Amino acid sequence: MMAPADYAKADRAAREQSDMTQSDKRVRIDFQTEPSRYRHWKLKVDGEIATLVMDVDEKSALFEGYDLKLNSYDLGVDIELADAIERLRFEHPGVRVLVLRSAKPRVFSAGANIRMLAGASHAHKVNFCKFTNETRNGIEDLSENSGIKSICAINGTAAGGGYELALATDYIMLIDDGAAAVSLPELPLLAVLPGTGGLTRVSDKRRVRRDHADVFCTTEEGVKGERAVDWRLVDVVVPGSKFDETIEARAKEFATQSARAAAGAGIKLAPLARKFADAAIEYETLSVELDRPARIATILIRGPAAPPPASVEAMMAQGATFWPLKLARELDDAILHIRLNELDVAAIVFKSSGDPGEVLAYDRVLDTNAEHWLVREIRLLWKRVLKRVDLTSRSLVTLIEPGSCFAGTLAELPLASDRSYMLIGGRGGDNKLPAAIALADANFGPYPMANGLTRLASRFLASPDNVERAKAERGRMIDAETAQRLGLVTFALDDIDWDDEVRVFLEERSSFSPDALTGLEANLRFAGPETMESKIFARLTAWQNWIFQRPNAIGGDGALKRYGTGQKPVFDTRRV
Amino acid sequence: MMAPADYAKADRAAREQSDMTQSDKRVRIDFQTEPSRYRHWKLKVDGEIATLVMDVDEKSALFEGYDLKLNSYDLGVDIELADAIERLRFEHPGVRVLVLRSAKPRVFSAGANIRMLAGASHAHKVNFCKFTNETRNGIEDLSENSGIKSICAINGTAAGGGYELALATDYIMLIDDGAAAVSLPELPLLAVLPGTGGLTRVSDKRRVRRDHADVFCTTEEGVKGERAVDWRLVDVVVPGSKFDETIEARAKEFATQSARAAAGAGIKLAPLARKFADAAIEYETLSVELDRPARIATILIRGPAAPPPASVEAMMAQGATFWPLKLARELDDAILHIRLNELDVAAIVFKSSGDPGEVLAYDRVLDTNAEHWLVREIRLLWKRVLKRVDLTSRSLVTLIEPGSCFAGTLAELPLASDRSYMLIGGRGGDNKLPAAIALADANFGPYPMANGLTRLASRFLASPDNVERAKAERGRMIDAETAQRLGLVTFALDDIDWDDEVRVFLEERSSFSPDALTGLEANLRFAGPETMESKIFARLTAWQNWIFQRPNAIGGDGALKRYGTGQKPVFDTRRV
Repeated sequence: MMAPADYAKADRAAREQSDMTQSDKRVRIDFQTEPSRYRHWKLKVDGEIATLVMDVDEKSALFEGYDLKLNSYDLGVDIELADAIERLRFEHPGVRVLVLRSAKPRVFSAGANIRMLAGASHAHKVNFCKFTNETRNGIEDLSENSGIKSICAINGTAAGGGYELALATDYIMLIDDGAAAVSLPELPLLAVLPGTGGLTRVSDKRRVRRDHADVFCTTEEGVKGERAVDWRLVDVVVPGSKFDETIEARAKEFATQSARAAAGAGIKLAPLARKFADAAIEYETLSVELDRPARIATILIRGPAAPPPASVEAMMAQGATFWPLKLARELDDAILHIRLNELDVAAIVFKSSGDPGEVLAYDRVLDTNAEHWLVREIRLLWKRVLKRVDLTSRSLVTLIEPGSCFAGTLAELPLASDRSYMLIGGRGGDNKLPAAIALADANFGPYPMANGLTRLASRFLASPDNVERAKAERGRMIDAETAQRLGLVTFALDDIDWDDEVRVFLEERSSFSPDALTGLEANLRFAGPETMESKIFARLTAWQNWIFQRPNAIGGDGALKRYGTGQKPVFDTRRV
Repeated sequence: MMAPADYAKADRAAREQSDMTQSDKRVRIDFQTEPSRYRHWKLKVDGEIATLVMDVDEKSALFEGYDLKLNSYDLGVDIELADAIERLRFEHPGVRVLVLRSAKPRVFSAGANIRMLAGASHAHKVNFCKFTNETRNGIEDLSENSGIKSICAINGTAAGGGYELALATDYIMLIDDGAAAVSLPELPLLAVLPGTGGLTRVSDKRRVRRDHADVFCTTEEGVKGERAVDWRLVDVVVPGSKFDETIEARAKEFATQSARAAAGAGIKLAPLARKFADAAIEYETLSVELDRPARIATILIRGPAAPPPASVEAMMAQGATFWPLKLARELDDAILHIRLNELDVAAIVFKSSGDPGEVLAYDRVLDTNAEHWLVREIRLLWKRVLKRVDLTSRSLVTLIEPGSCFAGTLAELPLASDRSYMLIGGRGGDNKLPAAIALADANFGPYPMANGLTRLASRFLASPDNVERAKAERGRMIDAETAQRLGLVTFALDDIDWDDEVRVFLEERSSFSPDALTGLEANLRFAGPETMESKIFARLTAWQNWIFQRPNAIGGDGALKRYGTGQKPVFDTRRV
């Protein structure tokens, strides 16, 4: 566990960076926080209704060089938001409605901080947007799968990312004071897109007519009043005098509709116990080892040290130490750390050690108690963590070796990988059991990808029979040659070939263009249907990333750089 | 009609450019050609079977600076391919199978020419890829809707774009000579993607397992023999001794399965009659007017000059002069011209003049004879032209004024536009009839967008009832205020406001970042579901365009620039 003093030190280090473009150097951005340390949000829970009040401390930016005025935000603000949402899930099982509000008068949020965007490296911008998108998808998942509907109460200006945050909620209320407006001014002001879900949620969630959307997204001052309702941009406009009472009434109404079982106490999400060394991170359930010269991060997952608790009560008593929950949180943190803080890593290699039978035993506990709120939240957390893995722009490799435990939920990791290698038989001078993988119900439903399909269904798009064939193997220990025959692993190799094959592959991977790999993997990982969620990461994000490379946005005369200077941007007028 | 001498002159002008990056200056790329002028393909028709033989003339590149060795291609090669496909549709109604072959020994095609890619401007690369994608989608449409299945007979190397072309066909045969292979070496060789459909067709059409696809797309030398079949990359491998007879047998088999009605003579696609002036192009059914200072291209479409032919025989007799067919071909040419040759144009403004009743009369002829092969091909051509409009990276605006004829098929243009403006009532000093639009069956089925929905269904995603409401209005002349109430136009304006509103809007549009508009429009135009086709233009193309901006590909030390120099590329190793 990281001591508060360490947090403070890491924060100071981050904030001592005077040049934001240094963000991709070795200054650690930390994704762990807790309500008592929030600088930008206040989480209030009152029975069934939780209120998250945005009150950004303008002097507590993640980097130097900008102030977070008018509830504008940077990654640090979003890390707190993401943390708050997780705590609602686990620590407050009685909550049935989430209300998002602002503490600033006449301002909901000015969106992503423009000077932060203008100063950040391309890698930071892209990773910032990705995390923000994941957090917003998490708000929607809260509504769809956890029975917590959300309301956004806009008391003034909701611009850009501020309105995009509202779009992630179920119900958008706009105060009707003649001035309050929602807007997506990114294009006219900054020459970039409303790229953290904005355009996709306008077109596919709010289903705003395309010509109205065109007008809206090119109108700096946005839309207010009845037009905002007519155009489906908000659900209701409310006079200021009735604003609070309407929020309360609507929240109560939504609470009544919620299927979330009123529950007793939640479980406390204790701070993760992590030890950072220069090239390693030690968590309780996994280790990260960084081979920077080779540009490889190896994540070694440790199976459970003890059998699963015998009852739901015992599981509740374990709380955040319950192995599947602890592992999910630690894996999530490790992935985010690598994404933001280890930009040079070309490939993430997943390994595991432990008893696959024990992993299956934990999965059975989750299956048996699937209706319990904590079990549901643990499954949903795993779903989101695995989606985060899918969306990580690093080559993903799983090495399945003797003594490993890629079973059930953990078998999703080889299935999420770009390639998997499995050793045939034992290894000379090693008395571990030959490598085996095992499938469970967990591989056939609870962890859909962003495309809406399970990883096995995506994998066997051409041959759904193979999914059925794999299903018949649930619970069995599958050896390497069988796994290859079933199509579950890419290569089954014997001991003689293993080292060379794996080494050559990883060396080759590190020799390729990082950008081309990002594009390749973003295409090959998501076969089949697209959903609103996958559209955000494909169509919208990819176009935004393109724009984030174009001189019209980021060049010296581009709109992002010239914003606020009084000088107009100069554009290359060629349309591409 | 452009005289052959003009073609030759335009070609010379194009080829006199010593610097390919000049391609975006005022050298006209012409999309019109005909088989007698092909330099790179031979089209042979033998009864039900057409064979397109790729035999690229390496000295006939579109620009200076590279030779088209080994059946590598540039836009000029693809323009001929697109032309040949159109001629199969219209001039050879008896053809039921298309075979693609190579005339080069042991080489099918080396793909897009690398030096062309390395030298081309960003805008040219993007537009080249877009056109190539549209052509390949056209080959698939041939199979899906015109009863012409296609076979690709790969006699040797099919690399990159060469294999991507094969992927567009229904059946891929690979010679089994120990050397012939299919490959997508873009990533390892050039640090770019197989971006003209390659990745998407591998994952979504061939449904290659994702880890196999990963290995395939990172293996420079590709895959051959049985593994190519096992991995679903090709349909069959055939020994050289049986190659020709197998092609013939398979072609005959496919011909038997075709639903294309054996028909008599086709109609001749006569060269388009066009007159180019400095800032205008005069076609027979439309005019293009270029206001370069304002960065606006206005396309004025003229309705039919005479009532439709009274019978199918009379329509056949009109052939390529039949108004809907001529207009579709001319509009297609105009759009392509603006895309490639007028890069500075920010907005395309559609206007029309004519009798909407006559336009509806033509639509009724097409409806009544929907089963006739020529009518089917005309509808399919319109579908493709309208999709080309949807995918054109310029702001699309329709101005609906007195005397206009946006009815039936032509009403798709306002529906394809980012915005439409309609004048209420008449105009002072003008005795034209007030503006009216009219819907027909054509607006409710035959012209789906790339997302699989009609433009009206995409528009009214939030309210399918509105589609039904619009349907009830078929055949009626709809005035401006009714059109606005029905949601068919963006703004209905009266004469007093018209000029200012339209002027301010167009000026504003020209003031925005061209790139941001491209990204905005690419998102807002395609609400709702994604298809394989739309994924190619969204997920794949957007990532490729991003990569086409990244120094790892296009920088001085990048892979595209260093290819063939003996020097390895130097990469920024940060993963984004």
